[in-house]
Amino acid sequence: MTKQFHGVFPYLVSPVHADGSIRDDALGRLVEHLIAAGVHGLTPLGSTGEFAYLSQTQRERIVAVVLEATAGRVPVVAGVAATTTSDAVSQAQTLARMGVDGILAVLETYFPLSAEATINYFTAIADAVNLPIVLYTNPRFQRADLSLDVLERLADVPNIRYLKDASTNTGHLLTVMNRVGDRLQIFAASAHIPLAVMLIGGVGWMAGPACLIPRQSVTLYQLARAGKWPEAVTLQRQLWRVNEVFARYGLAACVKAGLNLQGFDVGDPVPPQTPLTGPALADIEAVLASAGTLPG
Amino acid sequence: MTKQFHGVFPYLVSPVHADGSIRDDALGRLVEHLIAAGVHGLTPLGSTGEFAYLSQTQRERIVAVVLEATAGRVPVVAGVAATTTSDAVSQAQTLARMGVDGILAVLETYFPLSAEATINYFTAIADAVNLPIVLYTNPRFQRADLSLDVLERLADVPNIRYLKDASTNTGHLLTVMNRVGDRLQIFAASAHIPLAVMLIGGVGWMAGPACLIPRQSVTLYQLARAGKWPEAVTLQRQLWRVNEVFARYGLAACVKAGLNLQGFDVGDPVPPQTPLTGPALADIEAVLASAGTLPG
Amino acid sequence: MTKQFHGVFPYLVSPVHADGSIRDDALGRLVEHLIAAGVHGLTPLGSTGEFAYLSQTQRERIVAVVLEATAGRVPVVAGVAATTTSDAVSQAQTLARMGVDGILAVLETYFPLSAEATINYFTAIADAVNLPIVLYTNPRFQRADLSLDVLERLADVPNIRYLKDASTNTGHLLTVMNRVGDRLQIFAASAHIPLAVMLIGGVGWMAGPACLIPRQSVTLYQLARAGKWPEAVTLQRQLWRVNEVFARYGLAACVKAGLNLQGFDVGDPVPPQTPLTGPALADIEAVLASAGTLPG
Amino acid sequence: MTKQFHGVFPYLVSPVHADGSIRDDALGRLVEHLIAAGVHGLTPLGSTGEFAYLSQTQRERIVAVVLEATAGRVPVVAGVAATTTSDAVSQAQTLARMGVDGILAVLETYFPLSAEATINYFTAIADAVNLPIVLYTNPRFQRADLSLDVLERLADVPNIRYLKDASTNTGHLLTVMNRVGDRLQIFAASAHIPLAVMLIGGVGWMAGPACLIPRQSVTLYQLARAGKWPEAVTLQRQLWRVNEVFARYGLAACVKAGLNLQGFDVGDPVPPQTPLTGPALADIEAVLASAGTLPG
Repeated sequence: MTKQFHGVFPYLVSPVHADGSIRDDALGRLVEHLIAAGVHGLTPLGSTGEFAYLSQTQRERIVAVVLEATAGRVPVVAGVAATTTSDAVSQAQTLARMGVDGILAVLETYFPLSAEATINYFTAIADAVNLPIVLYTNPRFQRADLSLDVLERLADVPNIRYLKDASTNTGHLLTVMNRVGDRLQIFAASAHIPLAVMLIGGVGWMAGPACLIPRQSVTLYQLARAGKWPEAVTLQRQLWRVNEVFARYGLAACVKAGLNLQGFDVGDPVPPQTPLTGPALADIEAVLASAGTLPG
Repeated sequence: MTKQFHGVFPYLVSPVHADGSIRDDALGRLVEHLIAAGVHGLTPLGSTGEFAYLSQTQRERIVAVVLEATAGRVPVVAGVAATTTSDAVSQAQTLARMGVDGILAVLETYFPLSAEATINYFTAIADAVNLPIVLYTNPRFQRADLSLDVLERLADVPNIRYLKDASTNTGHLLTVMNRVGDRLQIFAASAHIPLAVMLIGGVGWMAGPACLIPRQSVTLYQLARAGKWPEAVTLQRQLWRVNEVFARYGLAACVKAGLNLQGFDVGDPVPPQTPLTGPALADIEAVLASAGTLPG
Repeated sequence: MTKQFHGVFPYLVSPVHADGSIRDDALGRLVEHLIAAGVHGLTPLGSTGEFAYLSQTQRERIVAVVLEATAGRVPVVAGVAATTTSDAVSQAQTLARMGVDGILAVLETYFPLSAEATINYFTAIADAVNLPIVLYTNPRFQRADLSLDVLERLADVPNIRYLKDASTNTGHLLTVMNRVGDRLQIFAASAHIPLAVMLIGGVGWMAGPACLIPRQSVTLYQLARAGKWPEAVTLQRQLWRVNEVFARYGLAACVKAGLNLQGFDVGDPVPPQTPLTGPALADIEAVLASAGTLPG
Repeated sequence: MTKQFHGVFPYLVSPVHADGSIRDDALGRLVEHLIAAGVHGLTPLGSTGEFAYLSQTQRERIVAVVLEATAGRVPVVAGVAATTTSDAVSQAQTLARMGVDGILAVLETYFPLSAEATINYFTAIADAVNLPIVLYTNPRFQRADLSLDVLERLADVPNIRYLKDASTNTGHLLTVMNRVGDRLQIFAASAHIPLAVMLIGGVGWMAGPACLIPRQSVTLYQLARAGKWPEAVTLQRQLWRVNEVFARYGLAACVKAGLNLQGFDVGDPVPPQTPLTGPALADIEAVLASAGTLPG
């Protein structure tokens, strides 16, 4: 529990064959490529990882492949997502036994939940494992109520140590920092400008686009840490074009399309989701080409 | 496929012990009670049935208990809900083998879906079984896009025969009727005034509150079918108070609390959901007492 | 204050020349036509009347023309809409002096308002005139918070006697009726099915589309009052197509386009609003032709 | 037209007596105080200036007092806000005659507007005056659709030179910059972290809170311009607490309450808005005291 997570954690896609089996080779190659590019950690089973579209068997296979390919070189923070407390606790315990370095905790809901019930859910996950927990809130796709009061209560749980916020409201992150101080370290998601979050005190970002531009993302992080803000801004403005495309077309479908263009053969998003085609695919190809990330 | 569904279909709660096992006896007793009260069908695994909080094993046990207790006296229309097409098809085929009379089809999503993908999802369910399909759309809790154009396309699938709409927009139902004619029969949900939907051509309602006021719901339906509108309105205004309480406190928690008050011992909603207490519970008790549905 | 408003109150358009002056003749002819068709009242300066786009001078001229053309044959209920209490009171007093029979009171806001401030606004209008007040709430275009608690408080003001609700939530109207009883009579807006609102106890409807189908609207009202529900439903389903077109294209632009097609020469909506053209105009023409309301 | 606006432009409150007359002295003293604190410009008739609650007569008096007190020492950019093109053009021409240095252009709407109509509105304002135009978009309180495509079209109008964005989505600003390049300079609003906007290329901020912390705001701006980011972040985190209070209680009421505490006697917000009292007032007092901006 003494390591601090920081830096660039790509949200890994979940490469799945049409029959539901995992494309182990494609996933292993992607992990190798990202570590070689200098990323600081890996996050399977985030939004980009289509956690909401995978069975428990598929989820475990994804994590097993990632852990084996990583071989301890960088921390692996894997996602837990459930509607019920018992399912979430069971997922977290399984991941802990498999050897992950941290848990990205997501609350899925159907009926609205009270603040108290929300706190109970995340606390139960934290109590079930001896691992650092990253809270993950995404108001666009999830219904969980992670209000400031809830966050402040959760920040008191010793192993709840990070917040990954996927709202678009960057000012909200500063408000959280002012409220919980150092008890929660903040990771940005792809809906924030990573550099702006670094400026105000963020420790990195967990995001799907980093799968496609890992080397540039690491450079951006290093410039920010070195306080080279003018150079960093120049790079950020260029990289932001990648995020813009993702905001336009949907996260998992975009990252999978981009990785296929880069030669990783990760397949299509899980049906009924549809792969990108036509102008959408051309947009992704153009933005990746301009970032110099397509094979010659 | 020749039977027409119509009338009052209570959305059954899913009585679950703290260890996750199903309270078979409570569920069987509830089914017996509802059939004795004259309901026209039963719907396990709807929203009120907490489909989003149950494992596949739990879902199957629920349906097995309901089918056995019903013994063919009324049709059983069971819910299918998934994010992926393959999971939905598998659930539907399992239910068909178990002997249900119809499928209530729900699309759960995480990322937004195109109209085409939405159509593919529901069509795949319909093609997988030889049973009538009820489309279920609930814009408050689900993200599926069942636009008019999507509904019109789905109405062309021969065994997609019903729509259960849980919006609050009653005029939208008349728009749907005008667009698809008799190809889709409309069931109201508890967010509509059942009598208003009957007036414009609806064939009944599928809703959680009918678990608590089954006899009165059947009477209301019969008055509407007989064209006795003044008597029906008087009863509707009284019964609407039950729906108002449900809109205030959340569906599954309310129906379970009410059934417990009525002596059915259905237990609590699945955690992290919390059972109703204090003033909320008192509100439910008051409204059920005023409807004459609490044991003396 | 003893008359009861009831029946069909068309929301009048505001015919304006390009230079801002009122098209008195067109407005007078429209009033004459509607009264001849049997409408029960007239409502200038509602949403359809583009109150939000008119100067105080224009508003007063509109009302003067309507009052003169009406000559007391039916009640005229004119709109008051403002962000400040003092402006609203001043408008109401002016209308009272001019001789209107009732006030349709709208709250416009920029910053969110407390319940208390909302109550103060409407109460100030009611206290300023010796006329019945119709509360008008439209959650799609206005920001006013007319919660149930606010409505219950306002229903205690003696001359606040009606509610015109432009939400799409018909069940909400029954909830209001259950809460305030006979203290507020309910008028539907065009987003509700008028017949459904009549069924549950509504007293009529105030809506823009009634300008275009006045005779049919009056027939629908009479069928409902006579309890001839089957005939009423048949007519309602046909007339609803008019409302559907309006929901699609925007109220004021649609009613003006339709009236121009019917030969009333009411001009275009106030810029920057644009008149309907192309397929939108063809849709309106088709629906009016099918309702038999276009000149041969 | 050669001056470039940049830096801190406080959104001035509109001090109004209960009888509607302007508190000239309070407004003049506030202007003097802000200029002495080093602000780079002044903006009467923004959101904080309650433009939506003032008559045209009041608006003109406000601007006259501000212009006279400013006496050309800093640019005055005054707000134009209307639902109709003709009213907006008339307001802009009046302001130009009075001698303002720029126009802050707001589109108010009731019915939704097409992109084309939106473009026409702003272009008509720009064409009517020989002054730089600041587009102002506030998705929380306004309904105008300033999409990226609309902004790109408006950026082609020569004297439309700035955008003041009051969304909370800071990434959107970078997207706008990437799209329109230098054709639109970006000012932040109080819902953004000013320093984050400066980092990515913003030229300043226009916001109500700057009325209360003008000196600190100017220092923050200077630190950002000097590239002293670590010092700037420390100050920003402290000043952000002021913005947090404003997000909690409503802009105009908060700024007026704070200025009253600072001794400016600006009065209450225009009724039915209510002045802050109790815990809300205590929160403002506490945050201003901690920022050292209350009189000893």
